[in-house]
Amino acid sequence: VAEREHIDVMRDEGEFRLIARLAERLERAGVSRASAAEVHLGIGDDAAVTAPRGATATSTEALVEGVHFRRDAAPIGSIGRKALAAALSDLAAMGASAGEAYIALGIPDDLGEPECLELYDGVAAVAADTGTIVLGGDVTRSPVLVLAVTVVGHAAAADALVSRAGASPGEVLAVTGELGGAAAGLLLVDRPELASELGEGTAALLVKRQVEPTPLLAAGTALASAGASAMIDLSDGLGADAAQIAAASGVRVAIELDRLPVQDGVARAAAAAGVDERELAAGGGEDYELLAVLPPDRVGDAQRAVSGVGSKLTVIGRTASGEGVEIRAPDGSALEPSGFDHLRTRPAPGAPD
Amino acid sequence: VAEREHIDVMRDEGEFRLIARLAERLERAGVSRASAAEVHLGIGDDAAVTAPRGATATSTEALVEGVHFRRDAAPIGSIGRKALAAALSDLAAMGASAGEAYIALGIPDDLGEPECLELYDGVAAVAADTGTIVLGGDVTRSPVLVLAVTVVGHAAAADALVSRAGASPGEVLAVTGELGGAAAGLLLVDRPELASELGEGTAALLVKRQVEPTPLLAAGTALASAGASAMIDLSDGLGADAAQIAAASGVRVAIELDRLPVQDGVARAAAAAGVDERELAAGGGEDYELLAVLPPDRVGDAQRAVSGVGSKLTVIGRTASGEGVEIRAPDGSALEPSGFDHLRTRPAPGAPD
Repeated sequence: VAEREHIDVMRDEGEFRLIARLAERLERAGVSRASAAEVHLGIGDDAAVTAPRGATATSTEALVEGVHFRRDAAPIGSIGRKALAAALSDLAAMGASAGEAYIALGIPDDLGEPECLELYDGVAAVAADTGTIVLGGDVTRSPVLVLAVTVVGHAAAADALVSRAGASPGEVLAVTGELGGAAAGLLLVDRPELASELGEGTAALLVKRQVEPTPLLAAGTALASAGASAMIDLSDGLGADAAQIAAASGVRVAIELDRLPVQDGVARAAAAAGVDERELAAGGGEDYELLAVLPPDRVGDAQRAVSGVGSKLTVIGRTASGEGVEIRAPDGSALEPSGFDHLRTRPAPGAPD
Repeated sequence: VAEREHIDVMRDEGEFRLIARLAERLERAGVSRASAAEVHLGIGDDAAVTAPRGATATSTEALVEGVHFRRDAAPIGSIGRKALAAALSDLAAMGASAGEAYIALGIPDDLGEPECLELYDGVAAVAADTGTIVLGGDVTRSPVLVLAVTVVGHAAAADALVSRAGASPGEVLAVTGELGGAAAGLLLVDRPELASELGEGTAALLVKRQVEPTPLLAAGTALASAGASAMIDLSDGLGADAAQIAAASGVRVAIELDRLPVQDGVARAAAAAGVDERELAAGGGEDYELLAVLPPDRVGDAQRAVSGVGSKLTVIGRTASGEGVEIRAPDGSALEPSGFDHLRTRPAPGAPD
């Protein structure tokens, strides 16, 4: 039946019907066209038309089957969720508000219409949660499932947005939420038998952290308003992402390992898997928390602002003159700042290396 | 050496070095960052920052190896050219001016850094020709070469942009330039032996039409200024694209086959290949000319405006009450309006079906 359905969708009626159904799905979720005056034209024309006010922040994120995800490791809707969430996380790291999304979808021959719609339900769920409107994209055949998501966020003016380049020596480094959960979740996806050593509830939360990340848009705008001088989202790992701030700002970033807010269950998952929990927290990546640099006198404001949107902000280090990143353990030893590099070691759950 | 180079690039130094080199390439071409006050932040941060004035038109186009192109059929730079050109053609069809581009690049293991840079030289050439600035994107591994390009164009206000939906009965249908060249070029890519029957010069022009299309941005803004009520670019074929205008505007579109401006050499290529030249001109697609609907009293203005930017505008039919598309031959017979459907029959040069 699935095969037959696929033939109907992809061969006989083709692209136009599928696009119409995907658009219908987004419309049902209320994320296909804003009532806002800024959106003039949505899906179904040569281009979407908006009239943005102030400044826009635009970012692109591509997820490829076998590189970033495996189709059988999680419900297909979570792939749609993760693609949009990861793209929006970059806007959060600018302190931008969510705006519009454009999605290029490459569909393999063995993916039927029901799966495409389920994928879009995941996209629509994140769009609805964040106030993002899906205004366009492209649909094409592809040997593997590909999602390339471009998101546009908004701010009152360009100087209200926070780049990676604004940090100065003598500032404070802080991180939202908790770390290591996504990396521990990845261990559990690869080795489900470890879940019994953690308790199913804790294991499920860690896996959810890996497969359904949340873009922290409200925390991002809170940090921007509280005076963050530089900001980045933690996608590649704390060490690697901190190195981006260090390089862009021309400062040295010093992180104190025992200050990292490690998520509940990460230590036990690490122990069960025989890996270092500090590596999961500092090097694992994909937590999509925000790493911000703040003037020392704004830390209290920033913590209150981040608490006000349901997260927390932990001071984990400082900036200094110099370059690079130093992650120091309480015993004085230094940890190699590491992170994932998509082209080298980025792990998909169970994907071939 | 190529293999070794690849290992260096993709495994040892990874994503960051490649991104830096791609950015360098764009910078050298002068298309990485506008001096315009509207661009505040380009490649290398979480997002690009602009402060657009007026309205924006945004469109996404994905090209996948084996579906839209074959890597060995043309220099790899022309794949980069075509990806950006096809995306910009959608902006031309809105009457927008070129603005920014964001490129998600999926790189297979057997593509080395020199080829990636050559690909970007093609992107940069089209960007330079059209005044487009490449402000961001994503780079990732992929089993096949994938380019997903999102472009943002600009207009003074949303109502200066032309959708597919504004045509009324009793208007005139006109097309820029000449048709059939891209389809004839595709025949020649697949069967190079036909070139000898055409003369090398003519054959080369037809192949160029297929592998290096030009986005008609100046003609698009000229037609928008001249009062076009609906517009679309010819990517899927005249019949299929006219059907989009008919459906979106709620009109019937009647095309007179003997009025089509067929490119020089198309008739001979069709004869040599044993196909109907009219099918190439009306159904072949990928000419990236603009199909516009105009009020009858604005046709002269529109023709002068399009001539002024180096193209021509030919009246090929009219709109009427009703629905659908009719392509009528001089003998009164009707041609089936056809076009390519990417998910069904879209041909890559020599790609597997």
